[in-house]
Amino acid sequence: MKTKTIPGPKAMRVIGTMKKHAYDSTFMYSLVVSHGHNCIIEDIDGNKYLDFTSNIGACPLGYSHPDIIETLAQYASNGTYKIAGQDFYCQEHADLAENISTILPEGFKTFFINSGAEAVENAIKIAYKKMGPLPGISCTGAFHGRTLGALSFTFSRPVQKHNFPELPSKRIKFCIKDDDPEIDAAENILKENKAAFILTEVIQGEGGYNVASKKFISNLRKIATKYGVPLILDEVQSGIGHTGKWWAFEHYNIKPDIMSTAKALQVGATAFNKKFDPGQRSVLSSTWGGGNRIDMAVGSQVIDVIKRDKLLENATKMGCILKKGLLELVGKKGVTDVRGLGLMVGLEFDSALRRDKKLTELFKHGLLTLGAGQKSMRIIPPLIITKEQINEGLGIMHKVLMKT
Amino acid sequence: MKTKTIPGPKAMRVIGTMKKHAYDSTFMYSLVVSHGHNCIIEDIDGNKYLDFTSNIGACPLGYSHPDIIETLAQYASNGTYKIAGQDFYCQEHADLAENISTILPEGFKTFFINSGAEAVENAIKIAYKKMGPLPGISCTGAFHGRTLGALSFTFSRPVQKHNFPELPSKRIKFCIKDDDPEIDAAENILKENKAAFILTEVIQGEGGYNVASKKFISNLRKIATKYGVPLILDEVQSGIGHTGKWWAFEHYNIKPDIMSTAKALQVGATAFNKKFDPGQRSVLSSTWGGGNRIDMAVGSQVIDVIKRDKLLENATKMGCILKKGLLELVGKKGVTDVRGLGLMVGLEFDSALRRDKKLTELFKHGLLTLGAGQKSMRIIPPLIITKEQINEGLGIMHKVLMKT
Ligand SMILES: Cc1ncc(COP(=O)(O)O)c(C=O)c1O
Ligand SMILES: Cc1ncc(COP(=O)(O)O)c(C=O)c1O
Repeated sequence: MKTKTIPGPKAMRVIGTMKKHAYDSTFMYSLVVSHGHNCIIEDIDGNKYLDFTSNIGACPLGYSHPDIIETLAQYASNGTYKIAGQDFYCQEHADLAENISTILPEGFKTFFINSGAEAVENAIKIAYKKMGPLPGISCTGAFHGRTLGALSFTFSRPVQKHNFPELPSKRIKFCIKDDDPEIDAAENILKENKAAFILTEVIQGEGGYNVASKKFISNLRKIATKYGVPLILDEVQSGIGHTGKWWAFEHYNIKPDIMSTAKALQVGATAFNKKFDPGQRSVLSSTWGGGNRIDMAVGSQVIDVIKRDKLLENATKMGCILKKGLLELVGKKGVTDVRGLGLMVGLEFDSALRRDKKLTELFKHGLLTLGAGQKSMRIIPPLIITKEQINEGLGIMHKVLMKT
Repeated sequence: MKTKTIPGPKAMRVIGTMKKHAYDSTFMYSLVVSHGHNCIIEDIDGNKYLDFTSNIGACPLGYSHPDIIETLAQYASNGTYKIAGQDFYCQEHADLAENISTILPEGFKTFFINSGAEAVENAIKIAYKKMGPLPGISCTGAFHGRTLGALSFTFSRPVQKHNFPELPSKRIKFCIKDDDPEIDAAENILKENKAAFILTEVIQGEGGYNVASKKFISNLRKIATKYGVPLILDEVQSGIGHTGKWWAFEHYNIKPDIMSTAKALQVGATAFNKKFDPGQRSVLSSTWGGGNRIDMAVGSQVIDVIKRDKLLENATKMGCILKKGLLELVGKKGVTDVRGLGLMVGLEFDSALRRDKKLTELFKHGLLTLGAGQKSMRIIPPLIITKEQINEGLGIMHKVLMKT
């Protein structure tokens, strides 16, 4: 990768304008994206980065994928590319609904919306509609989005919730070991209390790429059925292929009643077993939901390309190589653990300070990764990544992480 | 306008797929949008409609506007057109923040997000951050979006909230007359209770295009200041020109502390007086917020074109002609009132049944309008509309509405 001065002069101007006129959000790097190709992102000063983030999983086919460029070109002269998608129909909306049905559990319907947070909001609304305004159950370390409904069930970082009011919730431990003594916490709650839903990721994203124990998830499925409470799985980060399967829950041989996805799909989506259909118009809506025709066409294309190019298999294979390469670092220089599913890989450090320092050094060496949890690094390369690119990234990581 | 069989054979197929695979939302017409030009929308069977909806205000420059098509063309080959906008910077994000600052009150900063609902969620989060998790005050008939935070302060239609849990709120009457006996309700609450914010539209959208009384709004501004509670104005539907001013609140000679906008801007935006800046990173975020480069570039272009082509003046002039023409209908055949600001015009009927019947007949005659409130029709044509087009629409309305 080629990096010169970072930030370059053009980047400095953009960041200056942002500081003056915009809220200074979660920006970790002084990276101003210009364009990209394959797994490479180029900034506006011409620096190039190998991308191990996929924009938090939202660019599963990397950048300038020929099929996506072809789709974009079709809309370049369409002056109705973004419509009120719940008031007016369009072909792309129907196509995406039909296309995603081929990878959803049998008998599911979908509601399209604008973000991951909105996908979760609609998932829990569908549950409340049937169950009433009862408390919802979610997990320690969970991240479900920033709108106040989804945020009520989020427990990843205090700064995300400080001073905000919340909807009623019960929190259980997200168990990563089958022998965790708290593995039955949800049942203990449901024995005594009613609940509107159980909501969880099966591999936590923002919370640190923690992989749920098999027993924890299959327990949740069982007791949800036993107590008649819908199980909502949040696949916003893990869905559409990054774990090597369409949905992370397929690694657990179970099915949710309701689920949320977004990111890789280009739009938010709430999918649900037909028996949870609100069965009435206007219960759910949104101005643009289902109406961003470019995003929906690209989302459909993403599904097609993953199928055609066998990218689930690629994610599984490349994920193995990646994890094997990272495993060599564990136990050395403050690297304490590596874990994940497919191309969603977390690397744990002994301190947040070290993790942050290493993130910045990797960035300066032209490799993009992201933080997650208290002291983990998240690695989620595009599904199209090759062995050569994985090895190139591993080379940079070995060099940077093994330096004191 | 030319309409043949509605729905045509192609539309029937799309709607069939939607019924099978998607949640049946607020769709009122069997209209499957294909493309459009100026103020005309064409469906996939070749039917043409004169558009008095602007896709609920979200297409202020109509369809295939040459400046927008030029912008779209620039992105047709950009393979990084949608990025994680709170993790990575891009030029379009900074440009839009700078551009919108020229039409915002002095000293405001902006946070970009994905929808109107999310713009409201972030507005109230900014208020809570400073004030704590206190109840918020909002109005009867208010519509602020479908996510559970924004929805807690929405009181337009029961179906939108049934069975959902809510954040603490106090509801006051939205006063349309200066001599309303309840005009001091907010002060009566604040004398006895603390609140996190006062949130209102100044012209209600979904609630029925009700225009607030001058005294009601100036009272809210005064008592918000007196009791140290932020005044949040929701300009999601009214912002960016449809009332003949950039913001509906300019008709009232006051300024909010925090505001939300979306629709015409192509992305959601929460703007706030710098003294409400959370002053800390990661309080607000979102995967795509600020990262949809096409939408942000088009949003910026919308502001530029409105300035260059003096479309605020056009909205004011055309709104006058429209209201004058509709006034002739009032008092006849169940039409009871006409009201509005600029090109946001509401027509009131004596029953929901008549309103719905007339909406459908207008649609069949090739004129698109929308419902709002219990029994109002909302008319919100693109800002570029001409006198000839207004008169054409009025002609259809006279014909259809005066028929029994
Ligand atoms: C599991 C999960 N749920 C929900 C969200 C929220 O998605 P968005 O940022 O698009 O609102 C995220 C985003 O990181 C996520 O990882
Ligand atoms: C005043 C107002 N606020 C908020 C919203 C919600 O916007 P969105 O549908 O983009 O979430 C709307 C939408 O109609 C609105 O009119």
